[in-house]
Amino acid sequence: MDQNIISKIESIVGKDGYSVNTAELYTYGFDASIFHKTPDMVIQPKTTEQVSEIMKIANAEKIPVTPRGAGTGLCGSAVPIKGGIVMDMSRMNKILHLSIEDLWVDVEAGCIYNTLNDELGKYGFFFPCSPGSAEAAQIGGMVATNASGMKAVKYGATRDFVLGLTFVKADGEIVRAGTRTIKDSSGYQLARLLCGSEGTLGIITEVTLKFTSKPKTSASVLVGFDNVKDAGRCVSAIIAKPLIPASCELMDKVSIDAVNQATGNPLPNCEALCIVEVDGEPEQVDRDLQIVADLAKEIGATTIIPTKDKKQIAAWTAARKAVMTSLSALKPGYSSVSLADDMAVPVSKIPDAVIAYQEISNKYRVTVATYGHAADGNLHTKMLLNPLDKDEWDRGVAAVSEIFEATIALGGTVTGEHGVGISKAPDFQKERKSVISSIKAIKAAMDPNNILNPGKLEQWEGSILTNLRYPCKEYM
Amino acid sequence: MDQNIISKIESIVGKDGYSVNTAELYTYGFDASIFHKTPDMVIQPKTTEQVSEIMKIANAEKIPVTPRGAGTGLCGSAVPIKGGIVMDMSRMNKILHLSIEDLWVDVEAGCIYNTLNDELGKYGFFFPCSPGSAEAAQIGGMVATNASGMKAVKYGATRDFVLGLTFVKADGEIVRAGTRTIKDSSGYQLARLLCGSEGTLGIITEVTLKFTSKPKTSASVLVGFDNVKDAGRCVSAIIAKPLIPASCELMDKVSIDAVNQATGNPLPNCEALCIVEVDGEPEQVDRDLQIVADLAKEIGATTIIPTKDKKQIAAWTAARKAVMTSLSALKPGYSSVSLADDMAVPVSKIPDAVIAYQEISNKYRVTVATYGHAADGNLHTKMLLNPLDKDEWDRGVAAVSEIFEATIALGGTVTGEHGVGISKAPDFQKERKSVISSIKAIKAAMDPNNILNPGKLEQWEGSILTNLRYPCKEYM
Repeated sequence: MDQNIISKIESIVGKDGYSVNTAELYTYGFDASIFHKTPDMVIQPKTTEQVSEIMKIANAEKIPVTPRGAGTGLCGSAVPIKGGIVMDMSRMNKILHLSIEDLWVDVEAGCIYNTLNDELGKYGFFFPCSPGSAEAAQIGGMVATNASGMKAVKYGATRDFVLGLTFVKADGEIVRAGTRTIKDSSGYQLARLLCGSEGTLGIITEVTLKFTSKPKTSASVLVGFDNVKDAGRCVSAIIAKPLIPASCELMDKVSIDAVNQATGNPLPNCEALCIVEVDGEPEQVDRDLQIVADLAKEIGATTIIPTKDKKQIAAWTAARKAVMTSLSALKPGYSSVSLADDMAVPVSKIPDAVIAYQEISNKYRVTVATYGHAADGNLHTKMLLNPLDKDEWDRGVAAVSEIFEATIALGGTVTGEHGVGISKAPDFQKERKSVISSIKAIKAAMDPNNILNPGKLEQWEGSILTNLRYPCKEYM
Repeated sequence: MDQNIISKIESIVGKDGYSVNTAELYTYGFDASIFHKTPDMVIQPKTTEQVSEIMKIANAEKIPVTPRGAGTGLCGSAVPIKGGIVMDMSRMNKILHLSIEDLWVDVEAGCIYNTLNDELGKYGFFFPCSPGSAEAAQIGGMVATNASGMKAVKYGATRDFVLGLTFVKADGEIVRAGTRTIKDSSGYQLARLLCGSEGTLGIITEVTLKFTSKPKTSASVLVGFDNVKDAGRCVSAIIAKPLIPASCELMDKVSIDAVNQATGNPLPNCEALCIVEVDGEPEQVDRDLQIVADLAKEIGATTIIPTKDKKQIAAWTAARKAVMTSLSALKPGYSSVSLADDMAVPVSKIPDAVIAYQEISNKYRVTVATYGHAADGNLHTKMLLNPLDKDEWDRGVAAVSEIFEATIALGGTVTGEHGVGISKAPDFQKERKSVISSIKAIKAAMDPNNILNPGKLEQWEGSILTNLRYPCKEYM
């Protein structure tokens, strides 16, 4: 990075507001994916105005700028593959204004999900998107990837809660999109457009979210089956009842066995299971728990364990969250890898998807665990691979492509809640051919010099197609 | 319209698929606003492919195309102010596919809101946006204006239910945006961008909506107050409890008096009232009804009438819906006019807004009724004007501008659920200065020849500023 530019940046954010230290820069080259590229500078702005001033310089000098939240993304969205500046939003982490009776809250982009919910919880409210990385995930990053989690079927994804946001355009213009009112029918829904834009259209600095009241109580029932088809039929039957659960976590046999082996058998031994959570008023929760148990019985569940015991539910939740680490513990030298994760299919297609993923893993002789948010149709797979075994990794990569193809063939999408990033770019193209010209046109209109997270959209649209599904391969 | 072009259009949609009959064209020059402009041709396509073929011709010939739903819009969005083609979507009215267990439905853009809900209702589900014109409003038009209604505070607006949509770009390209899955984190949320685009970015031909389960039961309580401040305080207290009502309709004294005078006193005589609807499980509804009644009493309600009687509730709903017609009946020769309607403010600002609107109406010596969806902060005013009295109409127009200014000053928006159209363009600019460059850039990128609903965005952005708030003034 040119010393003259460094001086200009320092005059905006001060000495402690940036770094060009090599070791530090290296750590900013990762997110939670397998990709890496060291940036030339990391900046930690404290205000929207600072972001604006920095963007004016970056735009004039055509320096790439990649915004970064908590870096918990699993597909490389925050990896600065063209180098340049990483804009780390972690110092803009405040709750700016909470208006309980108006049902909105203003936060800075770096505000952490759990921090916001701790505050909302004091008044009986919550922002229910529940990402897996709730203790670290930043609201700005959640908006930029349209993140969600276990509770989307009942409560929606991040996009559904964004009333407005402030973002800085590539040329430094500060834009306030949307409103601080529950309703907004004014012009284009720019704030919603930025949901899922992964830092390519603007740098989100502040977000206005609506929120909702917390359910009075909740309970869960674990239902186990001797085949995954019945587990899928059960989920469909619950929804069609109609009964929209708060969450419904599915685990296949590979996931169950891995967790039982690694963490001392917290789960019953079966081919597939669902942990169904119902919430609401106390009487409703009792009735819904019974409805789910009855439906599971009708469909032929081999195990039905309803409970309100918070310790039992916490143990199941921990078991579900332990799939990735448990899988890694199965074989020394092997790692559980997030390559084909985050597929979403119509709920009725879940059994077909799980079976297809198992067949593909058999074909390529790799271990694949499938689990996920079944009532949303959102399935994750983790693949157990040895990073040093080139032949196996090649087979894994081939399996990933087929898993995505199978998902698209079932009417699904390759990314339900994580984003496109790098790892899903080639599959995104196959899935969304017809949107490419529009997103390209919008990107060019909003960022004519292509300085915002450059190198990503080129992959989505297919003009660059690296498909680097190999560990830690440094980008050129 | 050139005979050669007419022949080409006829070869696409057939003899019965278009009209150039003067009388028919005249009727397509209106929506439910005060604006009018006769188009040169109306086309009623039957398929997305027909729309695409028509757009290719229109784009090559630079003919304006204004898409039209049911024409129930109140601010002129569907008025073809540059002439050319009106694309009437009413023959594309089918429910294409309903997938109950997957929680999505595919409809053609011309599908009517009530038709969809009749079908969903058979399975215990509904699309809860509840526009005032439910028996006529088309889904495509609802998306294009991000319409909503009474129940947005609990259930959200149209934008929150759009999973995907098919639209035809200005150049005829058919784009399928979004997914048929509950979750979607793929690239830009194009489908949401089109919510509120009012036909300026593309012609929406099909929509994939999610839906939700119908509440088991509901009940209402009418609470009357001797001042509007207390009514507002009551709404805020209900939400902060936390208790999110299904709907909460507020009426001010002018509205109450007009309805009572015109329709035989269906409402108690008070300065302001709210009809609060709660829904959900039976026990919850009982408890919530009591909570609302207790809060209203604490705040000093002069009237508290809780009821589950469907006839009583229907009578109140009819009374609330009768404001516009009742107002017109007050003075012979006078009409109730929708000029300053659809303002939305933070809920806590409702009393300030109602009082400000009353003061402005006194200042300009015009009769203004204020009512609306108070828990959403969404207020409508109707103004009683004599179309033949130029001086009074001038005073009315001046009052409208001040009402919008007061709304913006309170942190609100000039359009909560109707759209910008023509009537709100000058105020939209004042409210959203910072989005203008972005929407202009996106419009130019998506429709470089400016043929989609031309003349509207120019007003939103201020390069044309007609502010024609006068009845039936034909556009040049």
